[in-house]
Amino acid sequence: MASKKFNNVYLKDYFSLVGPLEKDGLLNNYDLAIDDYYYGEKTFEQAEIKMQQVVVDNILNYNKLTDSKIDLLIGGDLINQISISSYNAARFRIPYLGIYSACASFCEELILGATFISGKLAKRVVGVTSSHNLNAERQFRYPVEYGAVKKHTTTFTATGAVATILTNEQSNIKIESATIGESVDMGVKDVNNMGAVMAPAAVKTLVTHLTEMKRNANYYDLILTGDLGLVGREIFLEMLDKVHDIKLKKYMDAGCEIYTNSQDTYAGASGPIALPLVLFDKILNSRKYKKILIIATGSLQSVTMANQKLGIPGIAHAVSLEVL
Amino acid sequence: MASKKFNNVYLKDYFSLVGPLEKDGLLNNYDLAIDDYYYGEKTFEQAEIKMQQVVVDNILNYNKLTDSKIDLLIGGDLINQISISSYNAARFRIPYLGIYSACASFCEELILGATFISGKLAKRVVGVTSSHNLNAERQFRYPVEYGAVKKHTTTFTATGAVATILTNEQSNIKIESATIGESVDMGVKDVNNMGAVMAPAAVKTLVTHLTEMKRNANYYDLILTGDLGLVGREIFLEMLDKVHDIKLKKYMDAGCEIYTNSQDTYAGASGPIALPLVLFDKILNSRKYKKILIIATGSLQSVTMANQKLGIPGIAHAVSLEVL
Repeated sequence: MASKKFNNVYLKDYFSLVGPLEKDGLLNNYDLAIDDYYYGEKTFEQAEIKMQQVVVDNILNYNKLTDSKIDLLIGGDLINQISISSYNAARFRIPYLGIYSACASFCEELILGATFISGKLAKRVVGVTSSHNLNAERQFRYPVEYGAVKKHTTTFTATGAVATILTNEQSNIKIESATIGESVDMGVKDVNNMGAVMAPAAVKTLVTHLTEMKRNANYYDLILTGDLGLVGREIFLEMLDKVHDIKLKKYMDAGCEIYTNSQDTYAGASGPIALPLVLFDKILNSRKYKKILIIATGSLQSVTMANQKLGIPGIAHAVSLEVL
Repeated sequence: MASKKFNNVYLKDYFSLVGPLEKDGLLNNYDLAIDDYYYGEKTFEQAEIKMQQVVVDNILNYNKLTDSKIDLLIGGDLINQISISSYNAARFRIPYLGIYSACASFCEELILGATFISGKLAKRVVGVTSSHNLNAERQFRYPVEYGAVKKHTTTFTATGAVATILTNEQSNIKIESATIGESVDMGVKDVNNMGAVMAPAAVKTLVTHLTEMKRNANYYDLILTGDLGLVGREIFLEMLDKVHDIKLKKYMDAGCEIYTNSQDTYAGASGPIALPLVLFDKILNSRKYKKILIIATGSLQSVTMANQKLGIPGIAHAVSLEVL
């Protein structure tokens, strides 16, 4: 079974920080915004480490928790060796597990945190993830100073960091269940079309979730995918319809909900923070939705494998949230 | 609490593959050995993906299991975006979680697998990890063809792959408990001295484990650290003695048990497979030890951060095994 039902796992709190472009976009209810991509540091990578530190510091402070009250810190990001998360973890005295599923990392963190709590092996777990446009560009593509031309299928890595606290104490948001996705390689080789890489993985995870949990898509008040973007979103909806005869009515993709049309971000936002930013800002904050299925999506590409002309695997992990 | 006690988690089986140098070294009881660093593939990275595939295929076949009987595949490796593991995972139809803690990844996989099984969220979990000397060298340092001079503190990334199956069905090896380590940055900046980076993390994890589990070091028939190597091993033992007044009597470091003195591997073996290769080959196979504490150690370095002259965080995760 890819799907898991959790016992007594709750989302206690979340905290978000966004970058300059995200501040000027469609989001309103983030907790902090920065105007400077360096964030007072010497390099963009060190800025991203500080972004992670600030969201973890803040979520602990707001909840009057110190390091010793947290059983586990789970971190992941896009930078080689997930070094943003590992370097940030060194600033805390909390047991640390590093994870990687590219832009699906947010859901992987929730699933692992929920597994520890559900099995009574932890009481409080902090998850943190981040992305920084200029770090991702220079690592995966080109430094933005080169001015490389972008394809319309390209997504734009959002800048920001998010932290969550999961606990076994009841809050108004329950982590009800989850479905762990498979690594799915459909032979797509275009690193500038991550939507096409991830859409089949998202379809597979959603269909598995609904089948194993014996639910239909209308069970959820909202299904929110991670960062398929304008192109991946259409492939996702078409595959669901044509292959599985599922027509989604209450659906949103986080990649399409962060930037305005005039912000020139091609096919929309990507990055592991895209889904949580929209979830925190637009979905949970609206109090309009009770049953929410989030499906974070990741393109498991690397420069090395792309240079070797291999297909790119995609992955998607789903988490069911109940607002009580 | 960094330490966790598991309910009904057993190591059902393990499978190992080693490279040419490892075959000629001190190990005897690996399952497969390869003579060709390309393993019949076009690139070293594709060879490493095949190595992972072969160990997973074999462990499933030997145990008469198919993909659908495995609830979860956990994978991690040293290559950017853990692409070896993610590309290998695409060859199976098993839900997949990617993890990263450098050479501590083997223990992270055991801990996560045990957490799913202990909490009754999975029945069978396969873990896989690998390293390939020529991939690690060209990614972290220089392609070996450059003939860069090595310092005596340098460890030699071992070539190989290992797979494990954890289950809730009793076998003769119990996964009894574990301690999740912290990311520890002592300011060491020398990427050619990973032993010095990892030793303080190993000390911290061991002391935490003994304290939280109310055990002294003699409780264990053997304490086996991951890949500290000749240099890190001495720092580890000295810190334990001088700072914590702990003198280890029944101790071994896997990094010192893979190559012969004449193999010219500087300070010994490293890589996420170093510890499991010695555990499978020398420790479990000998049937001499009942209570074993393995402490896998990782240097969380990256080329990007090393170029920015930051200190390197180390990490160590401990798992207690009981041979029944």
